[in-house]
Parts: sequence; C-alpha cells; structure tokens
Amino acid sequence: MPEKSPKLLSRRPDTVFITGLSPLVDGGRYPTKRVVGEPLEVQADIFKDGHDVLAAVLKRRKKGARLWEETRMFPTHNDRWAATCAFPDIGHYNVTIEAWSDPYLSWLHDFSRRLEGGQENLHTETQEGAKIIQAAAESAAEGRAEKDAETLEQLAAAVERADPAEVMRQAETPAALELMFQWADRSKSTVMDPPLPVFIERPKAQFSAWYEFFPRSAKGSGDSHSTFRDCLERVKDARDMGFDIVYLPPIHPIGIAHRKGKNNSLNAEPGDVGSPWAIGGPAGGHFAIEPQLGTVKDFEWLVQESRKLGVEVGLDFAINCSPDHPYVKEHPEWFFHRPDGTIKYAENPPKKYQDIYPLNFYCDDWRNLWREMVDIVLYWVEHGVRVFRVDNPHTKPVSFWEYLIAEVQRVAPETIFLSEAFTRPKMMQALAKSGFTQSYTYFTWRVSKQELTDYVTELTKGEMREYFRPNFWPNTPDILPYHLQHAPPAAFKLRAALAATLSTSWGIYSGYEFCENDPFGGKEEYNHSEKYQLTERDWDAPGNIKRFIARLNQIRVENPALQEFANVEFLPVDNDRMLGFYKRSGDGKNIILVVANLDFHQEQHTNLHLPLEKLGLERDAAFRVEDLMFDEIYDWQGSTNYVHLDPRSKPLHILKLLP
Amino acid sequence: MPEKSPKLLSRRPDTVFITGLSPLVDGGRYPTKRVVGEPLEVQADIFKDGHDVLAAVLKRRKKGARLWEETRMFPTHNDRWAATCAFPDIGHYNVTIEAWSDPYLSWLHDFSRRLEGGQENLHTETQEGAKIIQAAAESAAEGRAEKDAETLEQLAAAVERADPAEVMRQAETPAALELMFQWADRSKSTVMDPPLPVFIERPKAQFSAWYEFFPRSAKGSGDSHSTFRDCLERVKDARDMGFDIVYLPPIHPIGIAHRKGKNNSLNAEPGDVGSPWAIGGPAGGHFAIEPQLGTVKDFEWLVQESRKLGVEVGLDFAINCSPDHPYVKEHPEWFFHRPDGTIKYAENPPKKYQDIYPLNFYCDDWRNLWREMVDIVLYWVEHGVRVFRVDNPHTKPVSFWEYLIAEVQRVAPETIFLSEAFTRPKMMQALAKSGFTQSYTYFTWRVSKQELTDYVTELTKGEMREYFRPNFWPNTPDILPYHLQHAPPAAFKLRAALAATLSTSWGIYSGYEFCENDPFGGKEEYNHSEKYQLTERDWDAPGNIKRFIARLNQIRVENPALQEFANVEFLPVDNDRMLGFYKRSGDGKNIILVVANLDFHQEQHTNLHLPLEKLGLERDAAFRVEDLMFDEIYDWQGSTNYVHLDPRSKPLHILKLLP
Repeated sequence: MPEKSPKLLSRRPDTVFITGLSPLVDGGRYPTKRVVGEPLEVQADIFKDGHDVLAAVLKRRKKGARLWEETRMFPTHNDRWAATCAFPDIGHYNVTIEAWSDPYLSWLHDFSRRLEGGQENLHTETQEGAKIIQAAAESAAEGRAEKDAETLEQLAAAVERADPAEVMRQAETPAALELMFQWADRSKSTVMDPPLPVFIERPKAQFSAWYEFFPRSAKGSGDSHSTFRDCLERVKDARDMGFDIVYLPPIHPIGIAHRKGKNNSLNAEPGDVGSPWAIGGPAGGHFAIEPQLGTVKDFEWLVQESRKLGVEVGLDFAINCSPDHPYVKEHPEWFFHRPDGTIKYAENPPKKYQDIYPLNFYCDDWRNLWREMVDIVLYWVEHGVRVFRVDNPHTKPVSFWEYLIAEVQRVAPETIFLSEAFTRPKMMQALAKSGFTQSYTYFTWRVSKQELTDYVTELTKGEMREYFRPNFWPNTPDILPYHLQHAPPAAFKLRAALAATLSTSWGIYSGYEFCENDPFGGKEEYNHSEKYQLTERDWDAPGNIKRFIARLNQIRVENPALQEFANVEFLPVDNDRMLGFYKRSGDGKNIILVVANLDFHQEQHTNLHLPLEKLGLERDAAFRVEDLMFDEIYDWQGSTNYVHLDPRSKPLHILKLLP
Repeated sequence: MPEKSPKLLSRRPDTVFITGLSPLVDGGRYPTKRVVGEPLEVQADIFKDGHDVLAAVLKRRKKGARLWEETRMFPTHNDRWAATCAFPDIGHYNVTIEAWSDPYLSWLHDFSRRLEGGQENLHTETQEGAKIIQAAAESAAEGRAEKDAETLEQLAAAVERADPAEVMRQAETPAALELMFQWADRSKSTVMDPPLPVFIERPKAQFSAWYEFFPRSAKGSGDSHSTFRDCLERVKDARDMGFDIVYLPPIHPIGIAHRKGKNNSLNAEPGDVGSPWAIGGPAGGHFAIEPQLGTVKDFEWLVQESRKLGVEVGLDFAINCSPDHPYVKEHPEWFFHRPDGTIKYAENPPKKYQDIYPLNFYCDDWRNLWREMVDIVLYWVEHGVRVFRVDNPHTKPVSFWEYLIAEVQRVAPETIFLSEAFTRPKMMQALAKSGFTQSYTYFTWRVSKQELTDYVTELTKGEMREYFRPNFWPNTPDILPYHLQHAPPAAFKLRAALAATLSTSWGIYSGYEFCENDPFGGKEEYNHSEKYQLTERDWDAPGNIKRFIARLNQIRVENPALQEFANVEFLPVDNDRMLGFYKRSGDGKNIILVVANLDFHQEQHTNLHLPLEKLGLERDAAFRVEDLMFDEIYDWQGSTNYVHLDPRSKPLHILKLLP
C-alpha cells in the first residue's frame, strides 16, 4: 500500500462551485469577441453545499489594469446566474466571477423562515444579525467610507433592539440591502480561475461596408495605367454609395518572370500589366509600391484624402513572391527547394503556378521570416493603414497568424484583418479564433432559401457567433458566381440587399454596380478579368444600380437593428422562392422586416407569418410598415399578411415597423 | 505608440491545429470516466494549412508512466478524426493526440496526382520519394530496428530506379505504408496540450447490484438486537437474489442525547435503539462499532465471509455527529457556535434536528478536520471495505469530496463511492465530476413513460454519460415513493425490472422483496421505519418476489447488453401506458428488448415498432425472441409486432433476440 497518511491541503479550496461559463470559445483558449459598447451576457452555474444564500458579481478589467469593475449577477433558473456588461475601450479584457455565501442574506432568509414558522424566542437570532451588520460597519470604516459605516452602525443598533417583525422591516429596506451588499464579507469568496478572455474591437470590426477596386484602372481606361492620384474619384464614388472602406488589391511592384497575360494566359504579351498578386520586381517587394501607381507619398495622400471623406483605405496583404521578389536573392533559405537546390514554384498537382514562389513558414529561419512579415504590416500601419484584407491565409500556419495579428494589434489595436479563406469550415473557424477580425464566407454561393437560412443560422446561433464575424460578398475579382452570370439587374440588387441586411459587414468588388455579368471559360471567373489587364469602364454607365446601393447603405446606417449581428430571426413564408426575416435592435425600438423574392425572373407572392408578440404587437393588431427602399407604406393587420414582389421593379421589401 | 519591433517567438508554434476534443468533462477540468476494458472513442478536429496529408495517433499512458501507447487515428468527415482505445488497469490516465504533416503520404498523394495529370518527367519527384524513405531507414537504424532499416533501404533503392507507374506500386503496398508510418518523421509534429484526463475504475463501478439491510434487524426480531454474526444469513439471501454488494447503514455507536423514538418521534422511550445516522456515543465515534452489533473483529469476520460468497460489504459514510460524539469534547472548534458559545444543532428553519451537530467544514481548523474525515474512511478501508455509500454529500463542500476521494483512491484506487445526493441537478453533477463513482438518481420518482424516457436520455446521451454513473433505486429507507404505497406486487416487480435493465447499477432496500408498502404520516416514509426501531420480519414470508429478483440479476449477468450503460435506445410503442427500449452490446452480438406495462393494475397492449436495420435484421425478416423472465418464445415478423401484458402475471417482457 502507498503512504496512508493523507496530505494536508495547502490552500483553502473553493467554497462556491462556479462552472459552465458561457460564452467561451474553445473552453477559453481563444477570446470571446465584442466591439466597444456591445453588450456581453455572461452566464455560469453557481452553487454551494448546504442552504446558504449566495451572492455573485461579474468582474472585468483590461489586461494590465489593477482594479476590477463589477456588475451584480442574479440567478435565473436551475442554479444558472447571469449578468450583462459592456466595455468602454478597444483592447484585451479579462472577465471573471466572484461568488460567496452571503452571511447577511442567509441570515435574513433563516430569520424570515423562523418568523413564518412561528418560532417564539428570536433573541439569539436577532443578535446574530446585528453582529453581521456590525462587521459590515467595521469594513466600511476600514474602507474609509465613514458615512456608510455610520449608517450601518445605526442599522445594527436598530436591529438589536427591535422586536422580530420590526427586525425584518429594518433589515430588508433597499438601502440596507444595497449597503450590506457593498460591504459584504467576501473573505471566503470563490473567484473563478482562469478568467474568460474577451477582446474588444472598434465598432467597424462589426459594422462595415467595403468597396474593392483596382487602382491601376481607376480612370477606367484600358490603354493607360492609372495612379493613386486618379483614385480619389473612385473613393468619392464609393463614399457616395455609402461604403466606408475601400480596399485595394496589392499595390506592390509586379513580377516580370512568368508574368500572366490577359485572361490568365501563360504567356504575357508586351504591355501586359500582370497580376498584382505576383508581388516583387526590380522596384522592390512588399515594402515598395508599383512605380506606375506612384510613390509612397502619393499613397499617403490617398489615405489622408480618403479619411477626410470618411473612408478608410484598406490594403491587400498577400504573402506571394514572384521570382523577381528581393527575398529570392536576399533570403533563399525562406523558400522551398528541390533536391537540386533550385527554388520551388507553387504547385497544387497537377496545376503549376510558375509565377509564384511560396515561402516556407517552417524553414530553419522561420523566426526571422515570421518577424519580417509582421514588419511588412507594421510598415503600412505606419503609413496610415488600419484595414488589411489577407489573401489565402489558410495556406500559412494558423499559429503564424495568431502571432502576426497579436503583434500588429499590440501596436495598433484598432487594426482590422479580413480573412480571405474560402476553404474548409474548421480552418475558417480556426483563423477567426486566432485573431482575424472578419471573414469572407460561403454567402457568395448560398442562394436558395434553405441554404441562406441554414448558413445564417449557423453563423448567428451557435458558438461561431462569439468569434466569427462574417463579411458577405456577392462577388469578388476571383468569383463571378454562376447565379450572377448573364443575370439581370434584379439579381444584383437582390444579392446586394441580402448581403447588406443579413450581415453587418458586406462588400462588393467594383463592376458589381454595373451588373457586370460576363464570365470566362465556363468558370466563375470574369471575362477580361481586371486581375490581368487594365479595364475600360464608364463609371457612370447607364443602367447602373449605384443609387440602389447608396440607399441600402443609408438604410443600414439609419437603422440600429441592421448594425447588430446575431439578431436575425427568419420568418415563415409559404413560398419556397421567397425569404423572410426580421432584426430587432437590442433596445427593442427599431424593427426591420425583410421579404425577398429569390427568383430573379418571375413574380412571386406569399403570405408572411409574423410572431406579433416578439415584435411587441398585440394579437390582431393593425400596424404600418414602411418600405425604406421604395418609399411606400403598407397597412397590415394580424400575424398573416400578403406580399407580392416583381423582380423587375421590386426584388424585395426592406420594411420598418412604424410605431 | 508602443514598442514596434515585433518580438521573436521562443518556441516553434504548433504546425497542426488540434481542437474540439471529445469527450471532455468541463473542458478537461474533470476526468472522463471509464472502467477497465471499456472502449473510449476519442475525436478531435485535426487540420493544417496547405495541402499536406496528415497522420495522427491517439496516445495514452498511466499517470507517472514514461511511455505512451498509441492507436492510429483516421479522419471521418469535415476534418474530424477518431480512434477508440481501452485501458488495462484501474488508475488515472492521460490521453493526448499527436498529429503531423506526413512527408511520405503527402509525397504519395502528389505523385499520384502528377501521374494522373499526365506529367512526363517525374525524375525529381521519384528522387524526393526515395529520399523520404531513406530518411525513415536511417531513423529505423538509429532505433536499432535493423530489419526495418534493411527493408526500407531496399524500398528506397527500388523506388529510385523504378519507372513512375512502378514507383506507386512499390510505395503503396500495405507493408511499405505500415513501415513508413512506424518510422514517420515526427520532428515537426504537434502534441495536444494539456492532455485529456481519464479515470479508469473497476468493472463494478459500472455494473453492480446493491442490497441494503439494517444489521441490527438481521434476525428479523423486533425484540432483540441482532449482531454482525446474524448478518451472514442476510448476505447469503442477497447473494441468492443475485446482489453483489450489501450495504449497511452506519454501524457506529448511536447517540443518547435527543435520541429519536419510533416513527421519528422527538422523545425516545426506554429501549428505543435510535437512528444509526446519529453517530457517536460513549463507545466512540466513526472509528468505533455500536457495541450491540459486536466488535471490529466480528465486522471483519462478516466482510471476509461475505467475500467468500462473492459479496462485498459496503459501509455508510455519514458525517453526522450526535451530541455524544467524542469530537464534541475533543474538537469543539470543528462545530458551529451560537453567540453564547454553545454548539449549534442542525436546523433547516423552521425544522430543528437537536440530535445532530453539523461539522463546520470552513472552520479555522478545516485542514485537520478534512484530514480526519479521510482517516475515518481509510480506517475502514484497512478493515477490508472498498464500497462506501455517502450520506448527504451535498451538504458538505464539493472540494472536500474531491480531496477525500482522491486521497482514499490514492491508497485504494478500487474504492467505490456512491453519492446519496437527492438534490438539485447541478450539485449532483458536480459531485460526480469531483470523484463519486456512482450516484443515486431521480429514477425513484420517474414513473411515466415520458418521465422515464426523458431522464434516461439525459443520463445516457449527453455529457453526463462521461462522468455520471447512475444507480437506480426503487426504494430506500428514507423513501417509500407514493406510487409504491399500498401498491400490488406487480408494481414492485416492474420498478425493480426497470431499474435493473435501464441502469447498469441498481439496488433495493430490504423489505422491497416482500413488497412492503405501508407508509407513515402522508409522507414517503415507511411506517414503523427501521431507521428508528428493530424490525420484525419473516425473511421467507410468502408472497415475496425473491425469485423474480434473482432471475432479474441472473439475466443481467448473462447478457452483456445489460452491462453497458449508454446503449439504451427507446422504441416507439402506440400505448402511453407502455414503455419499450432495447440495448445492444458493443460487439453487436447480444440484443435485449424490454417492453413494460407501466400500469400496475390494468392489462395493456400495443404495437411495438422495431428499427430492424439497427438490430441487424432484414426488412420483413421473421425472427424469434425469447422472454428470459417467463421462459417463453415468440415468433415475430417485420418491424411491427403486437405485445399484450397483464400486470398480475407478466408486468413486462425481457426479450432476447435469438440469432
């Protein structure tokens, strides 16, 4: 037999059992995310042996801060407690719970049961209560809260000389309860450990509208390369459409060796501008600017001028090196090598990408490689950029992104990273957990009612809600989805409106406002893709949907319900080609109902079924809804109302419930 | 701005992302429980950036051991991987996962895609493969596996000189794959940290049948106190009924002050024996034996003799002190005190329990008090006891139990603790997580089909399955449930059979086999409760259901399906007064179907609907079922079969599916 004498415990074990904390991301390994001012409801199971009455507080403090802020928690049911708090600043917070068996509340509870049970002599019990109050008075005095101490002294005296019924009256006043909570004896409290990490970001992390365009085509000329100076017009146009972020594909020198020609042909012709994602040429790599776009000064000018317009300039962070990238000579050890020592180009057999050399993130010199990547991002942060769209992050280690984003946000915590990981669900989730602010999503390919409902439910009703912020894009330079190929303007309006109302962040790649719908090669590629050539474009071409988009973004700004993310609730409609949902703001004051015709070509109609109680309406109530997009008012009554939508004139209703 | 130069990382970050491990209890804070030989399926999300092919193993080792045992994991779907293992010994284990990007598998994958894609020159790629095999050969040589090294050398040479199609044939043989897995390059592997704790207990932790009786009434005489020497007859009787644990209410000296009289009256009369749970008298406390029962020697004799019969003796560990307990004088500091310094008796206002002094587990001397409690249990462990039923554990700190059970199991890891916490769900769960082997449950009060289905589903299909082992009791000395009061024998048979088949552990308090059904005072108490007096009983009284119970326990022992816990599947029956379920053993060979008439008084009939495919039967198959209780065989066909049950003769079928 082993040693039989039981060991003594070194520290006092927990008195209260605190468990089942929510929300947690991977059991607390990753922070739960919120934005400044956004409420966070924390729940936990809190209980203890025996019959004592418990008290609990939710505590939070910024990492590095000394003092905790507290919010009192209250039980809901089945030993579950809850409290809601919000956070004033950007940064990393810790949240924890402190709970204790409260002598005063326990005494009150016992005392009242004795009274009800008809116990006659309550002298001892009265004395006990006075003693508890007296102890609180002493704590208050030690805490130099003289006024509280005095009030508590008086209360103790009053209780001690009162008859039993009077004891309860004295001891249960709101003022007495509040003071006794304030100076409660927490010497045997339990504090949950480890605390829950929470990362608070700026509001734009959650609510943003993105517009992507190629600066080299800013003038809309197919013959002549545009510069940063030409871009301000595009930024103004984006601002007029209500976008608050413009994001630019890579602005760095483009490789010459194996440069891709028009429509991704293997052989570039003289004058072909190449893909901006093949980074690195004679003029430099990720720290440099493609000379035809201008200089760093020009770029800074664009960033400043855009900011004056209320628009942020975002950059594309693409870790691709062309064979001409300076790293190829300066750091050949950062690349993959063949047995013969030559550097490997990118391959996904049998496909070959000779214009791209991938970096080896696990090479022997990985430390310096990883730090260099951080340096690149910080260089552009220094030049005023706080928004990065990251190209293909899923082909680099997740731990690398965790490191890079933490290092950048240590310097500039307001920096936003959008993950362009169109990949497997678990990897997309891992990247979001590891620090990415926002993520591209499968929305681009979710078109049917069932697909949209399932996907948005997955994003908003499960654990993803705590860390994964979707950004809905109907198109990108890489994706003209099949359903938009040769599609009518109704399709472009509808998909934009769904993106902008189902998600708090959304974006389009330029050309969308002109309903560009011409595909290449039976794929989801654009014909004459801007990725490989300068694009001729009349930025005021007739038939554009710029006003529709502008109104859409305006509706988003004017309606708080559309600025909250997880509040989507789908509504039953009787027609499978139609989709209905509503969003209600946290304060309950703003309610937006969306009813969409998912059929781009045919009229559709349906009965829409409303949960009146959840909308704050009486059964059979008559009420008005205002179509914010088409400026019409409808008189509705009761839970079932008729909706008819003709895609040619009105692909959807965005309805505001009028008070 | 803070320091801008990014810090270098000190250790290589994870290459593979391992997350979403299951099963976990509270995120790994508490061990997942299994018994010796019981399979544990571990799953996790395992993935990595890029296109490499991964390999993973499930690793396990006993705490303190140096070497890990490994089982290869395989992907199921959506990046989820799984493997199943079992554990040979009682004790605490760690389980973890090691995963790596496998150069050989990745090379094979690439190579075959190149071949399929029609790539012509594969010389470099062939060389790469040979190099990877050569490296494995060197690892094998370093590991002194000369034979493996030689085989791998030969493989490398063969691959190097083979033409491309032949390369694949050589490299993909099962032997080659196995050897290359054996000597895989794991230098950049990721090991999940922290590991998952698993606690392995003896089979009886999961599968046991308990019988409780009062030793002082062993003879069945209302006039004369029985002794341990009288108990062996009762143990034999229990053994004959198929029970493998007999558990005795406290055997310690009983307090005299405020002793309770018959039927819990406040004033004992001369000769009243008092409640065994009021522990401590002139003859001692928890280390002593009530003199009227005999001596420690007598107790040891009973333990030894019972063991010879295949029955374990379990003790009741009740931390109650009577006013006459030695601690009252020796350790007054361990109790609660009134303002006047006197020791407090137990109260749950307005109820008072003057015969019990509760211990203060948070007193200043808590360390010694807690250790003393461990010493008590270890004292009885030394006297051969390995089963403890713990009285009211929810009125003591959960952290105390975590300490006590760990300390006892450090000495005797096979010790079983049954928690008698009839309290709130979260507390019952917390006690199970903290170390209790088994728990009493709400089964005692779950009588309708809906209640039974919901409760058993909660126990077997959620997280509780991993740590909470139910023990179903139809009655206890404290509970003659309302549905058994004045109930016919059919009720007693039915509730016993449900307990014994729905749960792997079950138990009865003696008297049940005589269908004792006389309540006291409108409560769920027995009349003339044995808790307060000697009980007159004819242990062979006519009308007993001892043979029914014996057969029930025999069926459990003979059918592996009834020895597994989480395999209950309910079956649709068309009658709400009837319940159907089946259990299939892990190897699929043993299938038991139970159909019960929940109505104690009326005949009931129903169609029973079977999921033939899950039972391994063809659509419309003809098959036979054998009623193991009533020795009858039925010919059934297809998924729907008719069942008729008359409670007077046959309250339920326990059917074995015949091959």
